[in-house]
Amino acid sequence: MSKGITKRSENYSEWYNEIVKRAELAENSAVRGCMVIKPYGFAIWEKMQRALDDMFKATGHQNAYFPLFVPKSFLEKEEEHAEGFAKECAVVTHYRLKANPDGKGLVVDPAAKLEEELIIRPTSEAVIWNTYKGWIQSWRDLPLLINQWCNVVRWEMRTRIFLRTAEFLWQEGHTAHATEAEAIEETEKILGIYATFAEEWMAMPVVQGIKTAGERFAGAVETYCIEALMQDGKALQSGTSHFLGQNFAKSFDVKFTNKEGQLEYAWATSWGVSTRLMGALIMAHSDDNGLVLPPKLAPIQVVIVPIHKTPEDLAAITAKVEPLIAELKAQGISVKYDDDEKQRSGWKFAEYELKGVPVRLGLGMRDLENGTVEVARRDTLTKESRPIEGITDYIANLLDEIQTVIYEKALKFREENTFLVDTWEDFKAQIEKGGFVMAHWDGTAETEEAVKNETKATIRCIPFNSIEQAGKCVYSGKDSAKRVVFAKAY
Amino acid sequence: MSKGITKRSENYSEWYNEIVKRAELAENSAVRGCMVIKPYGFAIWEKMQRALDDMFKATGHQNAYFPLFVPKSFLEKEEEHAEGFAKECAVVTHYRLKANPDGKGLVVDPAAKLEEELIIRPTSEAVIWNTYKGWIQSWRDLPLLINQWCNVVRWEMRTRIFLRTAEFLWQEGHTAHATEAEAIEETEKILGIYATFAEEWMAMPVVQGIKTAGERFAGAVETYCIEALMQDGKALQSGTSHFLGQNFAKSFDVKFTNKEGQLEYAWATSWGVSTRLMGALIMAHSDDNGLVLPPKLAPIQVVIVPIHKTPEDLAAITAKVEPLIAELKAQGISVKYDDDEKQRSGWKFAEYELKGVPVRLGLGMRDLENGTVEVARRDTLTKESRPIEGITDYIANLLDEIQTVIYEKALKFREENTFLVDTWEDFKAQIEKGGFVMAHWDGTAETEEAVKNETKATIRCIPFNSIEQAGKCVYSGKDSAKRVVFAKAY
Repeated sequence: MSKGITKRSENYSEWYNEIVKRAELAENSAVRGCMVIKPYGFAIWEKMQRALDDMFKATGHQNAYFPLFVPKSFLEKEEEHAEGFAKECAVVTHYRLKANPDGKGLVVDPAAKLEEELIIRPTSEAVIWNTYKGWIQSWRDLPLLINQWCNVVRWEMRTRIFLRTAEFLWQEGHTAHATEAEAIEETEKILGIYATFAEEWMAMPVVQGIKTAGERFAGAVETYCIEALMQDGKALQSGTSHFLGQNFAKSFDVKFTNKEGQLEYAWATSWGVSTRLMGALIMAHSDDNGLVLPPKLAPIQVVIVPIHKTPEDLAAITAKVEPLIAELKAQGISVKYDDDEKQRSGWKFAEYELKGVPVRLGLGMRDLENGTVEVARRDTLTKESRPIEGITDYIANLLDEIQTVIYEKALKFREENTFLVDTWEDFKAQIEKGGFVMAHWDGTAETEEAVKNETKATIRCIPFNSIEQAGKCVYSGKDSAKRVVFAKAY
Repeated sequence: MSKGITKRSENYSEWYNEIVKRAELAENSAVRGCMVIKPYGFAIWEKMQRALDDMFKATGHQNAYFPLFVPKSFLEKEEEHAEGFAKECAVVTHYRLKANPDGKGLVVDPAAKLEEELIIRPTSEAVIWNTYKGWIQSWRDLPLLINQWCNVVRWEMRTRIFLRTAEFLWQEGHTAHATEAEAIEETEKILGIYATFAEEWMAMPVVQGIKTAGERFAGAVETYCIEALMQDGKALQSGTSHFLGQNFAKSFDVKFTNKEGQLEYAWATSWGVSTRLMGALIMAHSDDNGLVLPPKLAPIQVVIVPIHKTPEDLAAITAKVEPLIAELKAQGISVKYDDDEKQRSGWKFAEYELKGVPVRLGLGMRDLENGTVEVARRDTLTKESRPIEGITDYIANLLDEIQTVIYEKALKFREENTFLVDTWEDFKAQIEKGGFVMAHWDGTAETEEAVKNETKATIRCIPFNSIEQAGKCVYSGKDSAKRVVFAKAY
């Protein structure tokens, strides 16, 4: 059915690329490091956006839009931030092309050089905090809870569709608060939203925790994150929420008068998830037959394929299917009836399997006689014949069940691939094999760096749910109060 | 109530700027020519997006995403297109900044010069048709009906918030078809969608027609447009739909095998509306008291303001209001209950008037006693006391009525400001006064240009609904078969 897809066990990276291509999710563009997100891939991203956007709005956030361009001087203002982001970036230096005086085509007009270079936003803290200066005067203006959906550019040298691209799509929240406690609460609230989204929508279990200083967002006081485990045993950072302290308020001079009439710097958070989640979604659930989608994010939840020989047969099947489609839609289920005569039903079966449509219904002439329908599940690849009577309720329940089953499968995988390791030998061996390695760490940047250099493993996070348990650092042997999550990562 | 807003009659341009500012729609950013769209303005744009997106999808279009960057050589490929768009644009020449070796801050790293400059997309025909080359092989791949929501950049020298900005947000549809007739049908279908959106959602009447060759999109065979009349008598092009013929298919070598097995170039359309519509919306309906929004695009359709002196009064009002809010929401009406204690009710009344909230409900203690509520309409600025019993149905109807009344008011304005003019003297005088001037034109570019030079008026379109009626060109006196729409324009 799905001949041609490389098996995960043979070449995981190639398997990933083939799913992206064969399921028509995205492709590399002619522009270095930039991708084209194809309609089917974009439809999944739209479902993600809608779900997240609803959650942001339900917690009082509003969307807005800020400029694509960051003046170079803005990026320089917050020192650590500049260190982190003002490096590999797209720099606009001119604002005009002109006809080539020496021949064909167009050349950059040297007379149209910008006084100050503009950077394509790698992230928008600088532009947004420069704007907030005009918006925040009093405690009455706070909190300011703003989110933006947009494109950003980071000039990555080694790119990979969805996982690491020069341009990507994301949302970035930027909030300002009157107190430190409130900003920390916001940082944590958003991490909770990300975790809920990952687990309940993407059906992808995540570990919540805090980054080490070395892995922190440039300019943050504390970076919170969710980390997921992919099927090849590598970790994927799936969302980050940063407590920025007063760093940006100080750099951009954003002060407000508090209730006592005193001037204070505002407290900040920022947080984002990106089209990288598409990569996580693919790698969390898909199998050697193609994409597997959790029903809540599937653009097509149910596909109905008629199996017929003659136009009369098709007409009879269509007559039976039409009320079924109406019933499914009335329950909020997205359904596609593929009666396209250009393709055979066998081709369609393979196609929807590749594309991860959760439920496929097949209807042939014998089904019409018997009042049955064939129900095929993408997640388990099982099929059964069911009475067409009552099938809508059955499918509604089935979609919920598939959502749960996919999540539980991913959770079981993560549990089986999470290891408590206490010796350096075991550590090196396990990191080589993959998975989340829970080990003691002495808390120093030196150890973190040494472990990374020797094994390529990084500390994915200091997890919230880690049991306080005294131990010895797996590398240095020094005292440690709790285990952290080590893994190789995307 | 709304002191401080310049009257339209005094200074229309200033009036516009003040509404943009006071209604908190947008503001100029620190980046030249780029705007910040503030949460309230963005919420209106989101409503526009949702309505349009639903219409595109209902007609078989799918969203996708293409790169922000256009390699310079792509822009050069379609000659007329290059003429039009490869001029004032943002050019990325480098991909790295580095620490300034001569002192503080960052400088562009000269070692990181791009081999080929990248242009920030001013529109995406070039990048998309380069991609379509890989997507279109057979008639089975057609039609390709794709839309993208994104940001674009055109380096405008004179900018104006929403109306003309260096960066703006828009949607751009790009379709490919097997036949010329089908592509033309698509171009017209989209124009119909734009007109429906303008009239039924924005409550803004539009003239549909075709652009003259001189006003055509660079690279198009024919440009269809909708034109609206603003309150200062100037026209505003509100949407364009282009039939591109085979121009881009030829430039990017996009051929398909037709049903007869022959290779043919694909036929193309492209079409777009932008955040410019925000400017149109403001100018179409607003008055000297502030913004006026059609209910279908109002982020808040109904605001409820409690009028109270004590916390006990507020509690009593809130108890009465809560079931009302639930009822309104159940009818799909967006409602805000503003019980914020930081502001007085008088301030709130002025604020929601400025922000164009269609219906304001006021509830005081006497209303509680009498079982009444004060209903204020933003469009007519009228108020009446109504029984609170049955108020939900009343408001649902009222919102529909306001939508209609606003549209009819704008239509009446346009009708009163559309003039049939037959002499050059009358033409010059009327153009000076403003409005749509329906006049005969000899069909030549020379006349069009001369009229523009002498009066600043352009031909907004050759309208579809113009009566075929022989006449003499208002400028040259030569024969003309029908009237066209002249106006000064934004």
